[in-house]
Amino acid sequence: MPARTEASSQSLKQQVIATRRAARSLARLSGDERNRILLAAANRIEARRDEIVAANRIDCESLIAVGAQPSSTALLKRLKTSPAGVKEMAVRVRDVVALDDPLACTLATTELDDGLTLQKVPCPLGVIAVIFESRSDVVPQVGSLAIKTGNGFVLKGGSEAKHTNRVLADIWREALSGHNAALAQAVCLLEERAEVMQVLEMHREIDLVVPRGSSEFVNFVFQHSRIPVLGHGSGICHIYVDGAADLNMARNVIIDAKVQYPAACNSVEKVLVHRDAAPRFLPALVRELQAAGVEVRGCQRTLALCPDFEIVPASEEDWSAEYSDLKITVKVVDGLQEAIDHIDHYGSRHTEAILTEDLSAAEQFLDEVDAASVFHNASTRFADGYRFGLGAEIGISNSKLHARGPVGLEGLLTYKYKLKGSGQIVADYAEGRKKFKHRHV
Amino acid sequence: MPARTEASSQSLKQQVIATRRAARSLARLSGDERNRILLAAANRIEARRDEIVAANRIDCESLIAVGAQPSSTALLKRLKTSPAGVKEMAVRVRDVVALDDPLACTLATTELDDGLTLQKVPCPLGVIAVIFESRSDVVPQVGSLAIKTGNGFVLKGGSEAKHTNRVLADIWREALSGHNAALAQAVCLLEERAEVMQVLEMHREIDLVVPRGSSEFVNFVFQHSRIPVLGHGSGICHIYVDGAADLNMARNVIIDAKVQYPAACNSVEKVLVHRDAAPRFLPALVRELQAAGVEVRGCQRTLALCPDFEIVPASEEDWSAEYSDLKITVKVVDGLQEAIDHIDHYGSRHTEAILTEDLSAAEQFLDEVDAASVFHNASTRFADGYRFGLGAEIGISNSKLHARGPVGLEGLLTYKYKLKGSGQIVADYAEGRKKFKHRHV
Repeated sequence: MPARTEASSQSLKQQVIATRRAARSLARLSGDERNRILLAAANRIEARRDEIVAANRIDCESLIAVGAQPSSTALLKRLKTSPAGVKEMAVRVRDVVALDDPLACTLATTELDDGLTLQKVPCPLGVIAVIFESRSDVVPQVGSLAIKTGNGFVLKGGSEAKHTNRVLADIWREALSGHNAALAQAVCLLEERAEVMQVLEMHREIDLVVPRGSSEFVNFVFQHSRIPVLGHGSGICHIYVDGAADLNMARNVIIDAKVQYPAACNSVEKVLVHRDAAPRFLPALVRELQAAGVEVRGCQRTLALCPDFEIVPASEEDWSAEYSDLKITVKVVDGLQEAIDHIDHYGSRHTEAILTEDLSAAEQFLDEVDAASVFHNASTRFADGYRFGLGAEIGISNSKLHARGPVGLEGLLTYKYKLKGSGQIVADYAEGRKKFKHRHV
Repeated sequence: MPARTEASSQSLKQQVIATRRAARSLARLSGDERNRILLAAANRIEARRDEIVAANRIDCESLIAVGAQPSSTALLKRLKTSPAGVKEMAVRVRDVVALDDPLACTLATTELDDGLTLQKVPCPLGVIAVIFESRSDVVPQVGSLAIKTGNGFVLKGGSEAKHTNRVLADIWREALSGHNAALAQAVCLLEERAEVMQVLEMHREIDLVVPRGSSEFVNFVFQHSRIPVLGHGSGICHIYVDGAADLNMARNVIIDAKVQYPAACNSVEKVLVHRDAAPRFLPALVRELQAAGVEVRGCQRTLALCPDFEIVPASEEDWSAEYSDLKITVKVVDGLQEAIDHIDHYGSRHTEAILTEDLSAAEQFLDEVDAASVFHNASTRFADGYRFGLGAEIGISNSKLHARGPVGLEGLLTYKYKLKGSGQIVADYAEGRKKFKHRHV
């Protein structure tokens, strides 16, 4: 029934245009007013706690009814919330209230001439769309960040979290309309999977899309939308153990970076070891990794240096694979330059670390390696908005333009130039009757 | 001969990888060292002035030999330089020397814990590619901006400027290798049209592409490359004449914005007039526009208010057309809200202006209109890096992410997070043995 599809696509577009219009009003509120909306939402989350938990129970029971496969166990764990979990949602919203107003500043002011003043000011992107899976705390988190920055937001959660998300989105609608009825449309909750493709096509109406899910899904969004994407398709993180590394520290850091949470995008996938350190270092490292249950793969030189261990010979695919699992691949390199070139060729520009006591090698690595986060003598697992102290995180971006690495509120902002004049025309300057003063104030 | 094509594509990729490697060394130079390279280039431009002029004469003569069509007359005008023009190139390079070093700052420092310090620092994008037409001053301009920011650069000029570009690129190579032979590869000059498509496919090797040319070409690049693009496909700029506008000022500003340089992307294409001002304003405006040779198109209300003038009825296409010519389309609107909605629907997010004495209407327009540049009581033609006092301009961007509007040096920069530790692991923090301090210093 194409007519009906078109009608629903039209009505979705109208909804998003309404979100866009409401966002314009939201952006004109003062920081205090936006904070009052956030506080109202935090209070409502607490007041409707039992209702949220009950809705969440319906979602969890439906998921269990579908079947208890291992993947749905992980899903269930992410989906399930509790009275304490709901309390935590409210705490997180209040944390965002406490952050400085990101819109209350002027980035630069220039008097182009008397009575002709240019201001560069931060402003919201407009409308952001977040497409996410089962996690039940995404709606309060995205809502607080979007409203803090004056953006409208379109949410599409996993169908397994439908009842939970409905209550939580309703709370944002209430908090917004409590301030002004017209603001309620600044939030738009979608439930149909088919609507995702429609959203990805609205490059005039939606300013940023934040996909949260598998790297296949993130890559799909990168490839199928003209809307700018904030996300990362993969995290292929390297640790380079320099010839001058403290080898005890190195084992410690590598074990942490691989074992502490192997599914994380900032966990280490490849270890590059300087040939001078390799003979002393590799057997001890491999022993410790294997004891921790890690499957070790290695280049030919690694295999030759560890004859007593079972190491899978690395294939070409291994160097660009993101395992997200208890697996790691090890390569012996001739030095810093080879390590940097290898990372430039295979890395995902996410997080890369050097372990060394040689400060000049460390500086060169941090300067030359092209990644959002470059670390010296620390675990790659520190690459995270909370650990970085950003106060809030929208996501991690592997893009070099706009916001990069762990992204806080600034990822939802852009800027504009406001020029205030009194009838000035360019011909006067082009023809020499007037001259620019360009006073930076 | 597919084998040969593949070989040449391979060698181009190797060239660009070499540019990438040289750029890493360039980025590690101090600001003084990068300035010395720029000064060496400025001196060489002056020393090789006659050679540049002679090469340019060959290019101009070839163009004339091909045929003197009107389009090639415009081309010739852009292509041709003179001893004074070459002198000006050197002056512009020295202007860039005088700008502050954009890499010499730290954007933020946070002590995550004792001995674990996070710095957010600016860094070059890596390699930028600029694809341009005939203008002979692009090579010195791009070179100076790229080297100032520590970026490698790939240049592809129009074939009609081949000899001129060769000499100018050679000057950059000399200036770079005068500092260090390995740096010469930071510049890469391409001459074959087929290489453009190869460049657009190198999204791992090239970090930003700046297309300069027709809007068809810019749109082609936007659609055919996964590399981020700095550019603007079109400039559909509006001026909204509010009910409370000073109508003499309004006529003056509109004439300037349309007539002073109609081919510019910041010239006005559409005028929206508040219905209260329209009866007094429109006949006088139309008379003045037509006297200046402008073809006027209009909505039905415009036609009804100007019965004594020949006005072409506007079609739906007119509202989204970029004329870049002495043409303009006029619409009567019911008020500010309709003007903002119209601009949101048809505008190109480039430059939009309101003319009014009502400060509250002006504020609402500047806040709510979604464009890189929003002006009150000034001509749209002011939207330009030079007029804005940016010191240098890479181009104008209609994108909202990264750099927006007229873009200076900051458009060629990104940032990275450098974390310097002493062996810290995440498990200590996750398991409560240590606590983050997050001291912002």
